[in-house]
Amino acid sequence: MDSPLALLDPAWERLRQTEELVLAQADGSRSSLEAALAGLIGAGGKRLRPRIAVLAGGMLEVDPGKLVKLAAAIEMLHTASLVHDDLVDGSALRRGVATLNARWSAAASVLVGDFAFTKATGLALGTRSLPAVEMFTRTMALMVDGEITQLARKRGIQSREEYFRWIGAKTAALFELAAGGPALLSQDGETAFASARRFGYGIGMAFQIVDDVLDFTGDPARLGKPVGSDLRQGVLTLPALIYLEDHPGDPDLAAIVRRERLELEVIEGLVDRIRRSTAIDRSLETARGFVRDALEDLWRLPEGPERLALEEIALGIVERDS
Amino acid sequence: MDSPLALLDPAWERLRQTEELVLAQADGSRSSLEAALAGLIGAGGKRLRPRIAVLAGGMLEVDPGKLVKLAAAIEMLHTASLVHDDLVDGSALRRGVATLNARWSAAASVLVGDFAFTKATGLALGTRSLPAVEMFTRTMALMVDGEITQLARKRGIQSREEYFRWIGAKTAALFELAAGGPALLSQDGETAFASARRFGYGIGMAFQIVDDVLDFTGDPARLGKPVGSDLRQGVLTLPALIYLEDHPGDPDLAAIVRRERLELEVIEGLVDRIRRSTAIDRSLETARGFVRDALEDLWRLPEGPERLALEEIALGIVERDS
Repeated sequence: MDSPLALLDPAWERLRQTEELVLAQADGSRSSLEAALAGLIGAGGKRLRPRIAVLAGGMLEVDPGKLVKLAAAIEMLHTASLVHDDLVDGSALRRGVATLNARWSAAASVLVGDFAFTKATGLALGTRSLPAVEMFTRTMALMVDGEITQLARKRGIQSREEYFRWIGAKTAALFELAAGGPALLSQDGETAFASARRFGYGIGMAFQIVDDVLDFTGDPARLGKPVGSDLRQGVLTLPALIYLEDHPGDPDLAAIVRRERLELEVIEGLVDRIRRSTAIDRSLETARGFVRDALEDLWRLPEGPERLALEEIALGIVERDS
Repeated sequence: MDSPLALLDPAWERLRQTEELVLAQADGSRSSLEAALAGLIGAGGKRLRPRIAVLAGGMLEVDPGKLVKLAAAIEMLHTASLVHDDLVDGSALRRGVATLNARWSAAASVLVGDFAFTKATGLALGTRSLPAVEMFTRTMALMVDGEITQLARKRGIQSREEYFRWIGAKTAALFELAAGGPALLSQDGETAFASARRFGYGIGMAFQIVDDVLDFTGDPARLGKPVGSDLRQGVLTLPALIYLEDHPGDPDLAAIVRRERLELEVIEGLVDRIRRSTAIDRSLETARGFVRDALEDLWRLPEGPERLALEEIALGIVERDS
């Protein structure tokens, strides 16, 4: 422990070990593609998911060696899904830097993503726990399934139910794994599992809703992507869906649901109308509701510095601005 | 058992169960992409890898339930790798029909491949054997790694060593898993494992060499792709490498190694020169050498109808014409 932070942050030391383990999966020594993956991992992100895993595991007194492997597997799975999602969405920017897809070919994105998926599975196997590996694989399947359903949809998302199901698969499932997975590594984890998993689900849902709100209200420079990028891609997220409930006749939103391409100016006008409406605050209130439910679950789990840190994470999710 | 073949073929019943299990992974009921995967699986192929797995497992008296799951996982992994490889190679035809990549978008190929990868891992987990799942994941990693190395290569393959390493990863590894994996599911499999695995490696190497020879000599209608497609893609396989050893000054081959694009006529002339050279027969002789080594390993394993059937498969690999 070579940082004073280690004294304040109960996750610090294990998160450092996780970071090392993730980086060791792609040291870039063998090929330029591996170097690309190493660059992507090194570029950071908040490491929110492995942090949750490490804290949940600490709270439940999980074997540290297994816990760090699971946390690393989760971060690697997250990275793999980012690489393939950028290819699927055709995104050019991620974390403010050019995506693999934009800098390299689609072929490179496919292979680097596959490489990260197999490394992630290998790390999960390092826990030697079949239940944990099974939850890991089911999560992977859910995430892919969510993307497939979205791509195969003939009409855009039109209801909150569809939206919640979609973000439940693409985002919340991985938070469920991060919070619930560690319980599967502990001896008497069965009672803790359900609460930990639901905690993860709640903050995962809130996280994605806030992400979708920031797509309307955020600072493009901080987000590393233009405002309204979901609408530009023809995707209605919660703010747009709430606005649609209030303005069912809005012709521009109706056109997006029909998957028509709109002029950039029309989209900018729509973004502006939604941003100035109550839909933003009501979306954030929905996110807060998920956080409140998540906290109810968290409070059923053992008290201590880890639980306190998880509480802070949950409360911080709705406050963040990037 | 509703076929007289069942009496002759020791793999028949378990292969039927494997087929059912594979098809059940994508019944096409949920999305058009899943239907696409079901179509691809239904389109067939020889089911050579699951057949080897089922025979090897029968020979080693492996629990049939676990064996069928491993065999299904192997066929699903094979399918997943085909989908992504077609995207990476930009192939338009596979098994004589348009690839997902050509019929759908790159996005669909990525997701259908990911879906198949996760289903494959889920099937492997069904064996409840960590050693088998670990070999499965290592094989997946090797296959991806082989493709990455190939894509990242600045110059084309120029030596037999590079070629053998490449086909060892992209093709033989999966045959190793098919033959060796079942040994990991049996109680006293450790002694059998090394021989079974080497048997798989040998026939896998022979299989790929024959594939690469057929790319020069095969009937395009039966292969479902044009003659000389490897050279068109700038890849030197064993026949071209042997020809290059004999004609080190050949300017067209040198240009391909430098990754230059050649006129179609120039490539056709080159294909013709190689086809009429001794490189074809010498490549097939190399394949036969791998089969002979494989048989040496096979003969260390328990006698019986399964071993006899594996022997037939090994001998058939060099005789096939598509």
